[in-house]
Amino acid sequence: MPGVDTPPAYRILDTDTVPALIGSLPEIRALLGGAPQTWRVHEVGDGNLNLVFIVQGAEGSVCVKQALPYVRAAGASWPMTLERAFFEASYYATVAPYVGGLIPRIYHHHPELYCTVMECLSPHIILRQGLIGGRRYPNVARDIGEYIARASLFTSDLARPFEQKMDGIAVFARNKELLRITVDLVFCDPYRRSERNRHTSPHLDELVADLRGDHELKLAAARFGRKFLNEAQALVHGDLHSGSVMVTEGNTRVIDPEFAFYGPIGFDLGAFLGNLLLSWYSQPGHATAQDNRIAYQNWILEQVEIFWESFRSSFLSLWAGNAQGDVLSTSMFARPEEAHTLELARREFLDGLFADMLGFGACKMIRRIVGFAHVIDFDRIPDAAVRARCEANALAMARTLLTEPAHFRSIQDVIDAVPRMARH
Amino acid sequence: MPGVDTPPAYRILDTDTVPALIGSLPEIRALLGGAPQTWRVHEVGDGNLNLVFIVQGAEGSVCVKQALPYVRAAGASWPMTLERAFFEASYYATVAPYVGGLIPRIYHHHPELYCTVMECLSPHIILRQGLIGGRRYPNVARDIGEYIARASLFTSDLARPFEQKMDGIAVFARNKELLRITVDLVFCDPYRRSERNRHTSPHLDELVADLRGDHELKLAAARFGRKFLNEAQALVHGDLHSGSVMVTEGNTRVIDPEFAFYGPIGFDLGAFLGNLLLSWYSQPGHATAQDNRIAYQNWILEQVEIFWESFRSSFLSLWAGNAQGDVLSTSMFARPEEAHTLELARREFLDGLFADMLGFGACKMIRRIVGFAHVIDFDRIPDAAVRARCEANALAMARTLLTEPAHFRSIQDVIDAVPRMARH
Repeated sequence: MPGVDTPPAYRILDTDTVPALIGSLPEIRALLGGAPQTWRVHEVGDGNLNLVFIVQGAEGSVCVKQALPYVRAAGASWPMTLERAFFEASYYATVAPYVGGLIPRIYHHHPELYCTVMECLSPHIILRQGLIGGRRYPNVARDIGEYIARASLFTSDLARPFEQKMDGIAVFARNKELLRITVDLVFCDPYRRSERNRHTSPHLDELVADLRGDHELKLAAARFGRKFLNEAQALVHGDLHSGSVMVTEGNTRVIDPEFAFYGPIGFDLGAFLGNLLLSWYSQPGHATAQDNRIAYQNWILEQVEIFWESFRSSFLSLWAGNAQGDVLSTSMFARPEEAHTLELARREFLDGLFADMLGFGACKMIRRIVGFAHVIDFDRIPDAAVRARCEANALAMARTLLTEPAHFRSIQDVIDAVPRMARH
Repeated sequence: MPGVDTPPAYRILDTDTVPALIGSLPEIRALLGGAPQTWRVHEVGDGNLNLVFIVQGAEGSVCVKQALPYVRAAGASWPMTLERAFFEASYYATVAPYVGGLIPRIYHHHPELYCTVMECLSPHIILRQGLIGGRRYPNVARDIGEYIARASLFTSDLARPFEQKMDGIAVFARNKELLRITVDLVFCDPYRRSERNRHTSPHLDELVADLRGDHELKLAAARFGRKFLNEAQALVHGDLHSGSVMVTEGNTRVIDPEFAFYGPIGFDLGAFLGNLLLSWYSQPGHATAQDNRIAYQNWILEQVEIFWESFRSSFLSLWAGNAQGDVLSTSMFARPEEAHTLELARREFLDGLFADMLGFGACKMIRRIVGFAHVIDFDRIPDAAVRARCEANALAMARTLLTEPAHFRSIQDVIDAVPRMARH
């Protein structure tokens, strides 16, 4: 077995072994219908870390996701803990009571095989693909805003006794190997020389050298790196970009929470916002004679506002109805005349999350352009010169967000700035 | 057995059973000398939570500290987890490599009896007793400043890979029962009606009612309550007041770390500072015809400065020599011209700790005057009117620290304000 040492009961699944495995589960068998040998199995994983099988029976289908003991893209040379399947399952189990239908249904988790049998999402596609294709999803921004509000509020000590959060922290503090990836690839490598970094070259060479010499920018990034490791506000997804969201016109699902840990709520907000902005800046690279994508860019900016306002209003209204936590306890502000004080304190807290969203969002943008893992929003732009211009604009926006935070007091400030940074 | 359910192997020790228990440990036997039946054993615990035995042999002595399954002062009606003995031992084991002789030597920890055999500190007394007695300890402020610097820096991700901190967090996140005490008694109860609260009455009735109606003050306290539960900067002692420090003229030791957890460094700084200030404000209550304590108050204010400067300079110089962490990584600021940037970032970090120290210190002061657990600095002042005046002045200082943080930019600002608040 390549990669990390694997437990004795672990084996890599394939299309031949999957039906027998899940066929032993009565619920799955009933759901798929017919005998396991009649089921059709395809491996469809396009991620870096996992095998993903779609199993189709006469009456239904399920998805089987198994962790591999190495980074798939790098092969056995980059070992990767299997435990991430445990953290993914634990994340889903923790947030499931709060987020309703916004995650896939989980049918079964097999701890020894590090695999999970879950709802097969169909006809959903990855949001990032939809954004590249210029497709509009009327609910997604509102849904993800509400999703983050629900998943974070109810795992924070704003809404729950702190002991509940501590129990979660004790579990997710073990998710170190995936956190290491985030720490290195998001907060460190982009700002220093690293063999893993790449960028569109030579077009961006000068800009990237400039960025790595920008003290103020690097200090801001380091500040958010510290926040990432020091602020255990709530259980966060940890990788909530547009590739971790599956959509249809009317339905939204959050997937791939293996980077989950107790961290700053703004990290999830920033992941989604940052990737909406990356999509905005990538649009000229996907323009055609029929569609210059300008209207679509405007639609994206509308989603930016909908996303933040959905998060903000959901969070505040859920908080008002669920203030059973130890932080900003209502018992300290119990007199009628103190309701206003408490409301002010909550708005101040939301302002902090807003600032965090912008900072983390910017870090996520930068790392996708000058770091190791890029996004197909840019990579699919075949003309390197066009791609570089798109990327340069996105970098300019990220840099402004990080170095001039005082200019961004409202989501409208962000929306106004986005086109201003598209100078080319 | 009263209190919490205890594990089968647990039994409460007494002066008859202690010698046989520790006599089976060759190292202890050698240290004490002679046969166990010749050892003299006294129970001397004056704390709320533990039995403390001093065992004296022909050649030496040791101290045996055992956790009781209830709060001693309240009897079986307030059960208390035995696990705190585990967290105390874990804290000592974690910081021991860094803090040199500033903690007692730990000879043995007995997990099933929740007891620890440690160095018998003699002729040390509790610092709080010394401060009430008007005695001067030339090293203590410097020592505790350096202690907090060492214990916190080396357990933070400034000096160590974040994985080390995560391992610690996973352990100490279980210390929920003691954290619950801090959350309730420090950050909530003082600011709301609670049967556990008390204050010098009727003298302070009006002031206390005023405090519980002060929105701004309560918001500030709530903000520090949030910080306490959300900022996992380093392993902190969690109860580092002047009753957790033992001293001789030349020697300083930190004891009783059972409230330890990964939290804000400023919480330990504030505990020590706040209790120095409580001592300052209590001095008029201990004045005699021979000693008005004014010179002693000045000595205390000198210690305030020495404490902070010792912490600050130790922390910065240790950080400079041990910057192997993931936060503010030197690899991101590796060029010669970036040394200054990194230095600025470190000073900014220290400024944050300074502000945290003041806020947490103020919370600790308030809770000792209007909350459940008071300090003997005030309680030993027999004249209630005198005591109330001392307490009112201390409350005024704490309130200013919390509600006017912008007025306190340096430790000198604090020192200047202290006598100004002694209006009576």
